[in-house]
Amino acid sequence: MTEDQLTRMLRARIQPAGRKGLVLGIGDDCAIFRPRGAGEDLVFTTDLLVEDVHFRAATHRPQAVGWKALARGLSDIAAMGAQPRFCLLSLALPEWAGRKWVSGFYDGFLRLAGRCSVVLAGGDLARAAKVACDIVVCGSLPRGTALLRSGARPGDALYVSGTLGGSALGLATRRGPAWQRHLWPEPRLELGRFLRAKLRATSAMDLSDGISLDLRRLCRESKVSAELNAPLPVFHGAGLEEALDGGEDYELLFTVRPGVRVPERRRGIPLTRIGTMREGRAGRVTLFGSPLAPRGFDHLRA
Amino acid sequence: MTEDQLTRMLRARIQPAGRKGLVLGIGDDCAIFRPRGAGEDLVFTTDLLVEDVHFRAATHRPQAVGWKALARGLSDIAAMGAQPRFCLLSLALPEWAGRKWVSGFYDGFLRLAGRCSVVLAGGDLARAAKVACDIVVCGSLPRGTALLRSGARPGDALYVSGTLGGSALGLATRRGPAWQRHLWPEPRLELGRFLRAKLRATSAMDLSDGISLDLRRLCRESKVSAELNAPLPVFHGAGLEEALDGGEDYELLFTVRPGVRVPERRRGIPLTRIGTMREGRAGRVTLFGSPLAPRGFDHLRA
Repeated sequence: MTEDQLTRMLRARIQPAGRKGLVLGIGDDCAIFRPRGAGEDLVFTTDLLVEDVHFRAATHRPQAVGWKALARGLSDIAAMGAQPRFCLLSLALPEWAGRKWVSGFYDGFLRLAGRCSVVLAGGDLARAAKVACDIVVCGSLPRGTALLRSGARPGDALYVSGTLGGSALGLATRRGPAWQRHLWPEPRLELGRFLRAKLRATSAMDLSDGISLDLRRLCRESKVSAELNAPLPVFHGAGLEEALDGGEDYELLFTVRPGVRVPERRRGIPLTRIGTMREGRAGRVTLFGSPLAPRGFDHLRA
Repeated sequence: MTEDQLTRMLRARIQPAGRKGLVLGIGDDCAIFRPRGAGEDLVFTTDLLVEDVHFRAATHRPQAVGWKALARGLSDIAAMGAQPRFCLLSLALPEWAGRKWVSGFYDGFLRLAGRCSVVLAGGDLARAAKVACDIVVCGSLPRGTALLRSGARPGDALYVSGTLGGSALGLATRRGPAWQRHLWPEPRLELGRFLRAKLRATSAMDLSDGISLDLRRLCRESKVSAELNAPLPVFHGAGLEEALDGGEDYELLFTVRPGVRVPERRRGIPLTRIGTMREGRAGRVTLFGSPLAPRGFDHLRA
C-alpha cells in the first residue's frame, strides 16, 4: 500500500469538511479550521521525523534534527500562505538519547522557532527504540484566503521557488553547500504570504517528496494536468533525477493566473516559471512532451 | 532524565503563555489558544502510543490500538472540560503492518471518533521499525473556563471518577473485565464538561500514569499538598499498588470547593471523595498520614 492509496482510502471513509468548523480536511498541506466568531482561519499540519528513515544519529547532529523536525511543519504552513502561531512536539526517545542529545535537539528546534516567532506550547514524551518526532504547527490567515492544492486552473502558469535537488545531493555526498541545505532547510514563510496576499496565487504546495510526485498530487487535487516546458532550476551540482525525484527541498510550487507578473526573485529567492497547467487527465505530468513518472518519495513504499 | 525533569527544563527555557494568543503552554493536560475575536477557547493535546512500550502487536488487536490512540487524546480534552472538535493522526508503520492491520486500526479509531463526534482532519504517514501513533486533538469551551491542574486550593475536596487499577490488572492478567478495560478505555468527556459547567471544579486532570504520580503533578501545579484520607475506589480484583501506581485508567481526578455537593454517580460513573487539599510543601501527598512515593509511570524512566 502506498501513502497516496492509504490517503484515498481514508478520504473515502471520512467526509469531514464543513463539520464542526472544519473547512478543509485530509489531502492538502494543512487542515483548515474556522473558530466561531473569529476573523481568522487556523491551519494545522503534522509531520513525522523518524530515525533511520529521515535521519541517522551517526550523521545528523541533534541540533539539525530538531531544526528539521520544526522546519517540516513550518514548510506546510508556508504552503498555505499562513503565519505560524504555535507548535506542539511529541518526542519518542531511545535510551541512548541522553540529556546532551536532547538538549542539542531543543537548541536547534528553539533556534528556528525563535526566528519564525512560533511558540512551543506543549507536546508529549515517550520511550521508543528509535527517535521519532511528530511536529504539529498551527498557523493563521485571513478567513477564506488559504492557498490550496486544488485551485489551479488550465492556463495557469506554474512556478517553483529556489532550486531543486540540493537536499538529495547533500544526502548523497554529505559535504558542501548541498549538505548544509539538506541539514538546515529554510521554510518559505514570507514567500508563502507574498504568494497569497500579493500574487493571489491560485494554488500552492511545498515540495517535500520530489516535484515528480508532488506536482502530480497538486494536479490531481486541481483536476488538471501539467506541462513542464522550461528548464528546472537545478541546485548547483545536482542531476536532473535529484531535482525531479529528490525529497526534502522544501521549496514552494505554485500557480498564478495567466498574465500575473511574478518577480524573478522575492527577498533573494529565485522564482522560476517551469510550466503551464492544462486540461486533460487529472494528475498527468509531462516533461518537454514526455510523460513524467512519479518517482518521488512515497512514505510507505517498500 | 525523567519526563518531569525534561518538562521542567523546557518550561525554564520557554515562557510562552500570553504570546500570540497562547493562554496556557507546557505543563497541563492541554495547551490553550484564544483565536482573535472568538468567543471560545481552543485546547490542544498530543499523545504518543508506541509499539512495545504502550502495546504489543501479539496481544493487542489493531482495532484496540486505534481506539486507544484516540482515547488518550480525548481523555486530556475531558480533563479540561472541553468538547472535542477535530483530530490529526500521525502514523509510523513497519513493513509488517499491511492493509489488513491498518484497516483494523482505523476501524477502532473511527468507531471512537464517531461516538465522540470528533472529525479526523488530517495527519502524516511514515515508515518506521515499529508502530508509533501520535494523536492531536483540538477541543473547545467557553472562553476562560478550562479546568486546569493549577486551580486547587487548601481545603478543597479531592475526588476521583470510576475505579482505579483496572488497566494495570488487565495488562497483568489479560483476561476478564480488567483486560477489556485496559483495551477499550472510555474518555470521560461528558463528566469533564459536568465538572466544569455544573460543579465548577477548581482543578482537574486525567489519570494516565497512576494517581501516586499524577496527584503529585496536580499538587505541584496548584502549589498545595494532598491528604488521601478515605478508601480508594479500587477496580474489582486489583491490588492497592495497581490502584496507586498503575497507568492508563483514564479516570478524572478533580477538586471542588468545600461544601460543593458532588453526586455519588454521574451517568453511572461513581464519583468518590478520596481526600483533601492542604497547605504545605507543593506536591507532597500522604496516604492515611504516611508520605506516598510517586511510583507511577514516568515515560522516560529506564
